[in-house]
Amino acid sequence: MTHSVLLKNVRPMAGPATDVLIVDGKFAAAGQSPVEGIEIIDGENAILIPGLIEAHTHLDKSLLGLPWYRNEVGPLLVDKITNERESKIPLGMDPQVQSERQAIVSMAKGSTHIRSHVDVDTVHGLKGIEGVMATRDKMRGWIDIELVAFPQSGMMTRPGTVELMDEAMKLGCEVVGGLDPCAIDRDPKGHLDTLFSLAERYGKPIDIHLHERGEMGCFSMEMIIERTQALGMQNQVVVSHAFCLGQPDRKYVAQLTEQLAKSGIRIMTTGPAAVTAPAIQELRDAGVVVCSGSDGIRDTWGPFGNACMLDRAMFLAQRNNFRRDDEVEIALDVCTYGGAISMDIDNYGIAPGCDADCVLVDGESLTDMIVSSPARKRVLKAGKTIAENGECLLLAR
Amino acid sequence: MTHSVLLKNVRPMAGPATDVLIVDGKFAAAGQSPVEGIEIIDGENAILIPGLIEAHTHLDKSLLGLPWYRNEVGPLLVDKITNERESKIPLGMDPQVQSERQAIVSMAKGSTHIRSHVDVDTVHGLKGIEGVMATRDKMRGWIDIELVAFPQSGMMTRPGTVELMDEAMKLGCEVVGGLDPCAIDRDPKGHLDTLFSLAERYGKPIDIHLHERGEMGCFSMEMIIERTQALGMQNQVVVSHAFCLGQPDRKYVAQLTEQLAKSGIRIMTTGPAAVTAPAIQELRDAGVVVCSGSDGIRDTWGPFGNACMLDRAMFLAQRNNFRRDDEVEIALDVCTYGGAISMDIDNYGIAPGCDADCVLVDGESLTDMIVSSPARKRVLKAGKTIAENGECLLLAR
Repeated sequence: MTHSVLLKNVRPMAGPATDVLIVDGKFAAAGQSPVEGIEIIDGENAILIPGLIEAHTHLDKSLLGLPWYRNEVGPLLVDKITNERESKIPLGMDPQVQSERQAIVSMAKGSTHIRSHVDVDTVHGLKGIEGVMATRDKMRGWIDIELVAFPQSGMMTRPGTVELMDEAMKLGCEVVGGLDPCAIDRDPKGHLDTLFSLAERYGKPIDIHLHERGEMGCFSMEMIIERTQALGMQNQVVVSHAFCLGQPDRKYVAQLTEQLAKSGIRIMTTGPAAVTAPAIQELRDAGVVVCSGSDGIRDTWGPFGNACMLDRAMFLAQRNNFRRDDEVEIALDVCTYGGAISMDIDNYGIAPGCDADCVLVDGESLTDMIVSSPARKRVLKAGKTIAENGECLLLAR
Repeated sequence: MTHSVLLKNVRPMAGPATDVLIVDGKFAAAGQSPVEGIEIIDGENAILIPGLIEAHTHLDKSLLGLPWYRNEVGPLLVDKITNERESKIPLGMDPQVQSERQAIVSMAKGSTHIRSHVDVDTVHGLKGIEGVMATRDKMRGWIDIELVAFPQSGMMTRPGTVELMDEAMKLGCEVVGGLDPCAIDRDPKGHLDTLFSLAERYGKPIDIHLHERGEMGCFSMEMIIERTQALGMQNQVVVSHAFCLGQPDRKYVAQLTEQLAKSGIRIMTTGPAAVTAPAIQELRDAGVVVCSGSDGIRDTWGPFGNACMLDRAMFLAQRNNFRRDDEVEIALDVCTYGGAISMDIDNYGIAPGCDADCVLVDGESLTDMIVSSPARKRVLKAGKTIAENGECLLLAR
């Protein structure tokens, strides 16, 4: 395939207007010539940013396209887990269909990469994994989807789950997932040793949900750090949510943060308003990479979420009291480069030679773009237009 | 004026579809007949809710319609206050023009009533008050705007401000405003005695900004309660923000909440993600009325805000960890009835006899409407259409 695209009159990162050449799916080097059959796109002075990175969601859980689900679920984490496990069949949730619906919304909103945790449990087995893998394969060339095998219902407490996790990795999941080693799985050593041994066996990275707060969460975090360092898994572990890093003892958190940086452990935060949350600026200042994601979108856990990573940047900014433009721009960096580093995406960005995954959006400035969040003018994946004027060119069912 | 409007096929509060008759600007009683010249509107199965109540904003501060303002302001509250006071003239902020621009966006988003705090200080005098009053008068019949005379830069610390506050009330402000009696004005007794005496002199209610956190904020709150009770001003005082009610000592907060309920003091919260915040459910359970607002919209304080009180309901829900539908509906109640009670709006609601201020919005359920926040299909003020398909019928300059 030899194909050139010329994006005329675009403003890279809201800078001065220019023309940007894409050759064979990559941003061209200075002086490089277009090949024949060039496609010319009028950018109409839009801002050009790299593709947004949805670094944490649950493609198999969304209820998009199904009748409204009236949420009457109890207050505990375990209430939500149990309710969801028991609701999937009655609600008619097909993981392939639901993941496809959400992926299409993601593309419309400018995401070019998704990391999806996918439930693995003894009731539904690998149905979720198989469904999302089918979507991943179907969408190849449109959006990159990677799967985290995720023991949502617990692993040590539910015999048979470890074997299913192993099976999920064998099937081709890209990441090993975990969940609250103390609060949910009641066996932090057993849980973490199992995760790290799966990661070692399959040569894959880890992404673990850690909702545990305060001292308990920090204890689990220490155990994750210990294993990451002992096994030489630096730069291969993400801790998602990490609410415990928002705890009041900032001196202790600073020490922990130093260890996170040393271990190359990345932190994923959605910028949650109702709980303690990692302080993005403090983590970045210490050298910790931070990424973000929508988490669940309209699922049995709650009605929120629209797959828009510009809205997510706004939530991050508001949660972190970012008001200055240079601060709000940090939130955008988290939703782009932070995600790309955390997911170890090659050739990411808008520099020459990078894959031409990018988004055109109207706005006076980067911050204006984030707070106004207008329909994406155009989204490109390796130079191919995948969405225009807020609509994905793949139709949702 | 004798005029009837028939809203066909609408779902009041997302209930069963029905036709709703409006006669002479009010919802008709059962059995009441339309007068001649009836206007028929096809509601297309939209949800019908009462007009949204913007109970806390700053119409004079918005930068809407001006070139993008790159925020480089310092971190302290006083940095933001000083920067704003000194930026108004260089930025060319005309309070009449800016307030009109924001009011027009508010109407497009479905608000039918606005309470606006308006700066009163020794540098700009009453220019803000006069400008917003001009907008208030110009918009009569389209949207109800009330002004709070607001000593943003401090009152006791800046000689001449009290006299200007008195002048603002004489000019016709509807509410006496105040601000952080300890942290900003450094004289809680002097500040509060002055506010309550202005309120007494002009027979007007009070709405005081209280950003003070923790024990200091609670101390100021106690002094507000003491004066409210001593002067018989029950049901005439709003405390805006009240971050201190989110402090960790919940037993003390519960005692304070009981006193707030007894004094009929209302609490305004925007659902801020970055600071401690009042717990809506706890306040309401104790009998305290809670209202909400956008606060500043795209001003020198920060880039956020879009005047949408459905988005605000979503922020309130997220801040308060409301996930169940019945919980999210509480957030809507805060942005409608809570605002109406706090602003003492007569004939509010969609029951027969109420003023026909209402909004038609698409959605499967109330919660769907809030989280999807589609363009308002139609907004009516006393039965007159003021906005359609997300556009206010009054054009912005």
